[in-house]
Amino acid sequence: MIVGILGGGQLARMLALAGTPLGLRFRCLDPSPDAVAGHVADLVVGAYDDPAALARLVDGADVVTFEFENVPAHAAEWLQHHARVAPAPSALAIGQDRLLEKRLFQSLGMGVPRFAPADTLDELRDAVQQVGVPCVVKTRKLGYDGKGQCRIHPGPDVDLAVRVAHAELTAGGSYRDGLIVEAFVPFQRELSVLAVRGGDGSFACWPLVENEHRKGILHRSRAPAPHLDPAIEQQAVGFAKRLLDHLGYVGVLAVELFEVDGKLMANEMAPRVHNSGHWTIEGSVCSQFENHLRAVCGLPLGSTAMVAGHAATMVNLVGSMPDRGTLLRMEGVHVHAYGKSARAGRKLGHATVVAPSRNEADAAAEAVAALTSGGDASWL
Amino acid sequence: MIVGILGGGQLARMLALAGTPLGLRFRCLDPSPDAVAGHVADLVVGAYDDPAALARLVDGADVVTFEFENVPAHAAEWLQHHARVAPAPSALAIGQDRLLEKRLFQSLGMGVPRFAPADTLDELRDAVQQVGVPCVVKTRKLGYDGKGQCRIHPGPDVDLAVRVAHAELTAGGSYRDGLIVEAFVPFQRELSVLAVRGGDGSFACWPLVENEHRKGILHRSRAPAPHLDPAIEQQAVGFAKRLLDHLGYVGVLAVELFEVDGKLMANEMAPRVHNSGHWTIEGSVCSQFENHLRAVCGLPLGSTAMVAGHAATMVNLVGSMPDRGTLLRMEGVHVHAYGKSARAGRKLGHATVVAPSRNEADAAAEAVAALTSGGDASWL
Repeated sequence: MIVGILGGGQLARMLALAGTPLGLRFRCLDPSPDAVAGHVADLVVGAYDDPAALARLVDGADVVTFEFENVPAHAAEWLQHHARVAPAPSALAIGQDRLLEKRLFQSLGMGVPRFAPADTLDELRDAVQQVGVPCVVKTRKLGYDGKGQCRIHPGPDVDLAVRVAHAELTAGGSYRDGLIVEAFVPFQRELSVLAVRGGDGSFACWPLVENEHRKGILHRSRAPAPHLDPAIEQQAVGFAKRLLDHLGYVGVLAVELFEVDGKLMANEMAPRVHNSGHWTIEGSVCSQFENHLRAVCGLPLGSTAMVAGHAATMVNLVGSMPDRGTLLRMEGVHVHAYGKSARAGRKLGHATVVAPSRNEADAAAEAVAALTSGGDASWL
Repeated sequence: MIVGILGGGQLARMLALAGTPLGLRFRCLDPSPDAVAGHVADLVVGAYDDPAALARLVDGADVVTFEFENVPAHAAEWLQHHARVAPAPSALAIGQDRLLEKRLFQSLGMGVPRFAPADTLDELRDAVQQVGVPCVVKTRKLGYDGKGQCRIHPGPDVDLAVRVAHAELTAGGSYRDGLIVEAFVPFQRELSVLAVRGGDGSFACWPLVENEHRKGILHRSRAPAPHLDPAIEQQAVGFAKRLLDHLGYVGVLAVELFEVDGKLMANEMAPRVHNSGHWTIEGSVCSQFENHLRAVCGLPLGSTAMVAGHAATMVNLVGSMPDRGTLLRMEGVHVHAYGKSARAGRKLGHATVVAPSRNEADAAAEAVAALTSGGDASWL
């Protein structure tokens, strides 16, 4: 059985590593000949909307899936006419657009930060006034890891800040899709819920995860989220179930949530495997990667339970890799190097600790995070 | 860092799957273009002693290792002159020859079944008399999974049986290396000790495993071996340590042991990752595959401890694969399909259950073993 993947980065690479033991074969499409999934899968080099490249991707493939949601809509549509595609491009389209996303969350009864759309500078002024400051102005599409957004702080210079935000965010090509203003939420923490749905409607959630960011990039995920109110968990799982059922979704989907004064607000969704679920490789019975593939291939879902009696902590390795010998000498640390060359702000790998107690998992993960980034090139 | 592997079967495939997250790249040499490691690694198709193929294997490789021990001696020697090779071919040479192996075990103070070498039919008669019946006649080289051996039972027809054994075992090409007669040991069970040694002399053992065979092929491995006398475990670990130190061994090595009346006898060694260690993928902190690669790449060894508070049971999937949906629906069963086409007696995959109790692990593994082999071709 051949699985085609749009994208050949670390997510596609981990999908291939997880799916090979199920007897699956993989073929990825990526614009870069250095795409790291190519180390363990067939790689088609081409643009995501190159008809010839897309044709090579789907040739003989039993199903096509995505490692990211920003595939051009017309490419996703073309794929649907030439292969079985999961998740459905309609879910990707919503995941691509912060405005559609927020409206959907609201319609499913989930709390969201106040928000308002804006196309022109005048509309942006109105939207900021309507939402109130502090707030965040974002492009509706194509932002990730803190890119494509500007914060507006309270003070005498709000109008200046609005003009700067408008100028900065409309400088790139993504403006054609408009902006959205969201209220800044003074949340206590960010959680994420990772869920999977099979084509037969079967559904499962991993335990909720607590996420911490540094410079707009995910730094650490802890599973299960410490000190979590069971009512909060139940609310998140119920929301994920409604969302996936509504979308007729097939595969893994992540929703980032804010915990605010004992309540949940939905921030955004990722219609794919997600960085906050990497801990599932060692920390749960069936990982997000294996379960995504089980779902899109029409196979029964695996258990999303954690390894009994254990806690997991994942830390991202960003920008440069620590000394290889030092990292591998740390007991019980599972290292995942993505085979990518170093670059500031680039996710080059992650490390997961699974331990019988939260303290042990956190302590070992903290030791990993404290390693100076030596820029060790021997990882390649 | 590029790792070359002699052989491209399931062991090489699982090495590549385990080593990719360490940032390693893989290139395998195998006579078959269908070698299943080729799904996740570069594949050089050629004979193991084809100089051009060997040259392509080592080109740019940082280290070369083996997925099996029966590489022609001159090929292993050639490799040593052109690349860093681990484990050393001298260890492979001993692992290839049951006579050298038994003598080495003896010299290191390990009990072995009575044995005697034989080249001619007359020598075989003498050897059988010396060892006594019941006994097993084996080719010194190239036997595996019960092939290349004949049992001699007590009774009036011993001489006839000896002549049959001689005729059968010398019919193939492996006779040039001679035969060995070993006393049949009425053992209570077979255990194996899996050990790893780094280039710096660092050493670690996984918990001892209990193995059960069916029709000469490993059927089930249970870790840790149930009801094991700590003194027995200590003896096995001490023996493995002496053996690996004596050989200056670098990598993973397995020794099959007989437990006989509360004592251990060494049966044979495999200078490579071993089927009885497949449970380590999910059952231990660092798997045999990852640790073999850490060792041969000169990296620190990972922990060989089991996942805390858990027991593991592995069953082989031999000859044909069970129905895919049925197998994947079994909770907590980790499936490893090798991507190989079905053939009687062929190892096509394995399944591992890791559970908080021995009973749970065994029960789920037994349910896997009880699945009728439907010959489901959808695994490919």
